[in-house]
Amino acid sequence: MNYPWPEPGTSLDEVATPMPVIDEDRLAANIARVQAYCAAHGKAFRPHIKTHKIAAVARQQIEAGAVGLNCQKVTEAEVFADAGFNDILITYNILGAAKLARLKALNARVEKLAVVADSEVTVAGLAKTFDAARPLTVLVECDTGAKRCGVQTPEAATALAEKIAAAPGLHFGGIMTYPAVGGAEKVEAFMVRTMALLAEKGMDCPVRTSGGSPDLFSAHLVPSATEHRAGTYVYNDRSMVRAGHCTADDLAMHILATVVSRPAPDRAVLDSGSKALTSDLLGFSDYGAIAGFEGARVISLSEEHAVVDLSECTKPFPDIGSVVKVVPNHTCVVTNLFDRMVFHRGGKVTRVENVDARGTVW
Amino acid sequence: MNYPWPEPGTSLDEVATPMPVIDEDRLAANIARVQAYCAAHGKAFRPHIKTHKIAAVARQQIEAGAVGLNCQKVTEAEVFADAGFNDILITYNILGAAKLARLKALNARVEKLAVVADSEVTVAGLAKTFDAARPLTVLVECDTGAKRCGVQTPEAATALAEKIAAAPGLHFGGIMTYPAVGGAEKVEAFMVRTMALLAEKGMDCPVRTSGGSPDLFSAHLVPSATEHRAGTYVYNDRSMVRAGHCTADDLAMHILATVVSRPAPDRAVLDSGSKALTSDLLGFSDYGAIAGFEGARVISLSEEHAVVDLSECTKPFPDIGSVVKVVPNHTCVVTNLFDRMVFHRGGKVTRVENVDARGTVW
Repeated sequence: MNYPWPEPGTSLDEVATPMPVIDEDRLAANIARVQAYCAAHGKAFRPHIKTHKIAAVARQQIEAGAVGLNCQKVTEAEVFADAGFNDILITYNILGAAKLARLKALNARVEKLAVVADSEVTVAGLAKTFDAARPLTVLVECDTGAKRCGVQTPEAATALAEKIAAAPGLHFGGIMTYPAVGGAEKVEAFMVRTMALLAEKGMDCPVRTSGGSPDLFSAHLVPSATEHRAGTYVYNDRSMVRAGHCTADDLAMHILATVVSRPAPDRAVLDSGSKALTSDLLGFSDYGAIAGFEGARVISLSEEHAVVDLSECTKPFPDIGSVVKVVPNHTCVVTNLFDRMVFHRGGKVTRVENVDARGTVW
Repeated sequence: MNYPWPEPGTSLDEVATPMPVIDEDRLAANIARVQAYCAAHGKAFRPHIKTHKIAAVARQQIEAGAVGLNCQKVTEAEVFADAGFNDILITYNILGAAKLARLKALNARVEKLAVVADSEVTVAGLAKTFDAARPLTVLVECDTGAKRCGVQTPEAATALAEKIAAAPGLHFGGIMTYPAVGGAEKVEAFMVRTMALLAEKGMDCPVRTSGGSPDLFSAHLVPSATEHRAGTYVYNDRSMVRAGHCTADDLAMHILATVVSRPAPDRAVLDSGSKALTSDLLGFSDYGAIAGFEGARVISLSEEHAVVDLSECTKPFPDIGSVVKVVPNHTCVVTNLFDRMVFHRGGKVTRVENVDARGTVW
């Protein structure tokens, strides 16, 4: 399909809308800032590539000092293995013969691959698939308050670790969690207790990996974590500003959108609908912010329209045909809507990258 | 990317998850049902292809008797023009030199193309672009209560129609609306008044096109509408069942998802996150239904996880590794997440189609 991707050198004013665009300098600053923080606190940093899904951006993160990559699904990891990355942690329970076969093939070619597990069923499937000739590293996923996946107690974590260690084809690599925001104390307590129980069994716990972007700069409050994982920080979004993780100056992604209608004095319609922004609210009461137009509220999205309520907008809104910059509530999911991503600096397009892992939900 | 699309003949049990799958018989029945209703009421039916974005499905709709296609954006229309469809209505304000140029090229090769406009700015851009050698048909978009795009009054509709008619390169084709659900009376009143005002000016109003799936079977309450447009009906979803448009037996799309974790007695996690379902709530308090498990509530989505609250589930939920069928709140946006779509009949995959117009938001 002949989609109107811009050429490098094009002025940002001439980019087709709706279009997400990434500020190169803010992107580089976000990468550097988090890497510096983690280095200052003696933690390895492992970016979650879900936010960009682009091999070239992952390379920037590795070059800045990241220890490896975090992926969520097998096909997502395959894309980055294809691109030459040699240290990948898949923070997911991998189940079913087809996925396990693909995982085995991946493990044969990625120097340092690891997955997580939070149940005996998952571990049994992995144990059946892998053998001592080329074992797979498995971490135990721990629920430290986010109430998603994960074993519920340090005792359960220890028991599962023993199951992993007992399998000839598996290697127990440590523990992993995706914590609740602000849950540092619970993470630390869980990790300390689990390490103690494992030590009683004569077992090491080499990797203790925590994660999250919103309270990333509190990661030092989990001294037992050897590593931190985060994705959203690389582009940032409205929810990251609200969380205090960053300021509006650190927003690398905006969605350029054209005003296509001004049907009433207090209403505007933009061409960026849910198929450009997604309907992710993340606790906001509206679907995005519009840079430079405080009080303008994106009150509803159709698939190809954004309806903007201007009744509280503090300045006159642009006319039909004008382009505005939408700050997404959630950047990661915008990435997954587009086949390519436009980058810019100084008002000009610098590059257009393929979103290499778009759609890899398997 | 080597995504695990299934081959025709594969058992549905072996389809990779998460995966949307389309029941062929329900699809055909949905197409036939709506076509029969419109025929019975003397209305042309024009399907909105956004829900499937697949040329082969559009062909099924045309073969069933649809008068042409409805697209929302220029690049979406281009895909269907490429596939040979010769009657396309783009229900959008087309603005900006680049889009207008592409629209002109489209008009040169599509036998019957039309767009809508709701402002003088939009009409002026179209008037400047098209000439009498190959004019473009333009309908006036009317706001009949949905408060999205559209002129606000029949008087304003008439004035804009005159502007269109006055342009040598444009042809006034009639009026279009996307109404509020349950707004049949307002649509009828607006259409009747506009037609009367146009008649006073000696102007015909050949096409009066209304739309919507939720109250599609009330379209006969708008006798002045010559045509009805709808997209969602073709697959249906949870919101269509709630609206009374259809029953659960008419749901053609389900998302197959694997139970990847049972961390607690009242919690399950599925591998279908917002990147498979979207976060579209559409007024529901949860993110999808699970066929056969009433009371199981998808209470939160991460990008690759669905957390299911089982506390009110009326029967035991399946174990880790089992596959369940999720009913999406909103089917159209699921389509736009996947490069291909799997169809099935009798428990076996029948075909896998490219989602031809995935991502065409420009």
